[in-house]
Amino acid sequence: MKRIDQGVCAPQGFLAGGIRCGIKGGSAKRDLALVYSTAPCASAALFTTNRVKAASIGVSQEHLAKGSVRGVIANSGNANACTGAQGMAAARRMAELAGEALDISPEQMAVASTGVIGVPLPIETIAAGMPALKAALRADAQGHEAALEAIMTTDTRKKAGALEIDLAGTPVRLGGMVKGSGMIHPNLGTMLCFITTDACISPECLDAALRRAVQRSFNRVTVDGDTSTNDMVLLLANGQARNSRIHRPGPEEAAFREALESLCIALARDMARDGEGATKLLTVTVRGTWDEESAALLAKSVASSSLVKAACFGADANWGRVLCALGYAGLAFDPHEVAVAFASPAGQLQVCRQGMGLPFSEEKAKEILLADSIEIIITLGQGPGEAQVWGCDLSYEYVKINGDYRS
Amino acid sequence: MKRIDQGVCAPQGFLAGGIRCGIKGGSAKRDLALVYSTAPCASAALFTTNRVKAASIGVSQEHLAKGSVRGVIANSGNANACTGAQGMAAARRMAELAGEALDISPEQMAVASTGVIGVPLPIETIAAGMPALKAALRADAQGHEAALEAIMTTDTRKKAGALEIDLAGTPVRLGGMVKGSGMIHPNLGTMLCFITTDACISPECLDAALRRAVQRSFNRVTVDGDTSTNDMVLLLANGQARNSRIHRPGPEEAAFREALESLCIALARDMARDGEGATKLLTVTVRGTWDEESAALLAKSVASSSLVKAACFGADANWGRVLCALGYAGLAFDPHEVAVAFASPAGQLQVCRQGMGLPFSEEKAKEILLADSIEIIITLGQGPGEAQVWGCDLSYEYVKINGDYRS
Repeated sequence: MKRIDQGVCAPQGFLAGGIRCGIKGGSAKRDLALVYSTAPCASAALFTTNRVKAASIGVSQEHLAKGSVRGVIANSGNANACTGAQGMAAARRMAELAGEALDISPEQMAVASTGVIGVPLPIETIAAGMPALKAALRADAQGHEAALEAIMTTDTRKKAGALEIDLAGTPVRLGGMVKGSGMIHPNLGTMLCFITTDACISPECLDAALRRAVQRSFNRVTVDGDTSTNDMVLLLANGQARNSRIHRPGPEEAAFREALESLCIALARDMARDGEGATKLLTVTVRGTWDEESAALLAKSVASSSLVKAACFGADANWGRVLCALGYAGLAFDPHEVAVAFASPAGQLQVCRQGMGLPFSEEKAKEILLADSIEIIITLGQGPGEAQVWGCDLSYEYVKINGDYRS
Repeated sequence: MKRIDQGVCAPQGFLAGGIRCGIKGGSAKRDLALVYSTAPCASAALFTTNRVKAASIGVSQEHLAKGSVRGVIANSGNANACTGAQGMAAARRMAELAGEALDISPEQMAVASTGVIGVPLPIETIAAGMPALKAALRADAQGHEAALEAIMTTDTRKKAGALEIDLAGTPVRLGGMVKGSGMIHPNLGTMLCFITTDACISPECLDAALRRAVQRSFNRVTVDGDTSTNDMVLLLANGQARNSRIHRPGPEEAAFREALESLCIALARDMARDGEGATKLLTVTVRGTWDEESAALLAKSVASSSLVKAACFGADANWGRVLCALGYAGLAFDPHEVAVAFASPAGQLQVCRQGMGLPFSEEKAKEILLADSIEIIITLGQGPGEAQVWGCDLSYEYVKINGDYRS
């Protein structure tokens, strides 16, 4: 498995592009993106679990169910959520516009939106931008970058990656981009993730691989506990690598699954690091539970605690809050078996054992916690279960960004 | 029902006092409190649901189970949580010290602690303070105030109240104090609440009244989603009002229950308003659900959302976040039936109907949301269920307080 460049354009046969069409008003930022495979695709997707769903989610779910999606049109600056029948019509129209431009059926397009909720989507602005968007499509890094910029909102970094693996002698590539920094929580939060691959793989294997990868990556990221109306992870596989088709469990299927999981985890970590107002990446590792699921639940409770997050911001080794957050996770465990350590590139320090504090150097703790990537390592001694969850600290800047997002 | 003064000392036969014994180190603040009935009491209590429980919780649960508690000794500055066998011994010793001072059995005392987790409780400091604490006991407002000050940590306001009701011609009083501002969430979060009454009432009726009152008050307050290791609500009834004993449902029982609920709601609202770093009291009212419980669940989801809270801080009428928070509450409802209004002393404004935005004046919305007490009114049109939840905004100050609490 090796890291390569060009993001979603790394796999063969994929084009991408992004333009400024004017959805973001006077802003000079890009706001309309297209990612598209020149060949038909197997596809898989996961959508928000929020009861209130954006119009784009409804349309994409319909199209995915028909099994022939090979591209996605996405806008930023407007979520097209809570916009009623007019919003549904606008989302359908987005797919039609893309279909017309690419000379394919609208059902071959997924639709994604991100931005402010409850404002009608200016669909005519999008329609007017379509010739420029089509002209912007490219098969290289520039196409990828432009598309990625066009789906960003409060994101401060570009989050993307690509990998190449060898499947029985055939090189196969995967590329991905993700947008999201606020409203990110397990079960997806305004997050759009588009992943492309030139692997030849059955829809069933693709779907299974995506579910597992998302479970271990994006569903283990938490920024602020909110889950958005618009989240979507879309995976398109166009078979252009011409590997022997993956259609059942086996070494090739496992290698693909592992690569996909690795790519998703890298994107998920980048997203946590780019949490709104975040100054630090927080990794919570829980070991020694009965199973992976319970470890993930406990780790999420710690990574989601406002008090733990604020302590990380302040580089305060307040391990009591870690125990407290474990305690209200809803799982029965023996508090007297819990051990806690803080770690970062500056070192590692055990601060709690058997549920009680250990004497430790406050200076050393401060040094560890001042790093921009810190880990809380929790062991419970109940079994072999282990999981990692990624989050970030809670800063003044988070409050500032979200106190006046619409203005 | 009329409001009266003197807090926990308002009911006949109760003494209270508070001193500085030195648990808070060099601070001049009070840190040790005693509330005590000169006559035996019926008692009821509710404790934290956190799996990690402070030593004081364990000891108080034991003593409450024996049915003869008539007072509580409480300290601030140290939570005596995650302190192992030594912590349990210290909590037991606190009850013994109070018992010796008051010449009653230790089992007649409840024990409460609040403060930093994981630091051994300096029990000898408390022992040395006992003569002064006993001497500080008073039956008036000053005793109440001193005890209240001694249980405060990051609280910025004193939160207390008292009521008098008429039970078949006999005046009966209830008084209460509460401490808590951070780590407050439904199911109790570092919150200590001591309520006294001179009502003559059976332990069964007292317990039922307390459970119901807490359900509708403290369990509907949310500040930051954390639930503490140390929470306790204690209710002592010493019968000194000499009303005809309440021992079954009926008009007197209902009047007592109503008064207790009213007192608890007032304390709960005060606590929400005093949330760490809060600049505003946020009331979320949900109407038109199937039942009260589902209304409370939806209201909590909105009042707990970091994004909604940050928008309130910024006076941003971001109703889309309200819908989003309803959507991930875990209840099935029809998003197209939802209406949302913002209200405050400055007016009321409908911003969403049938799940869609309405045109509204941003200036008027700003005016409403700049008030220091704001309400979000949500209607669902599914049934008669209704509930209110209280919370606060999320400010820079919250992050500051919690970024460096221990230092």
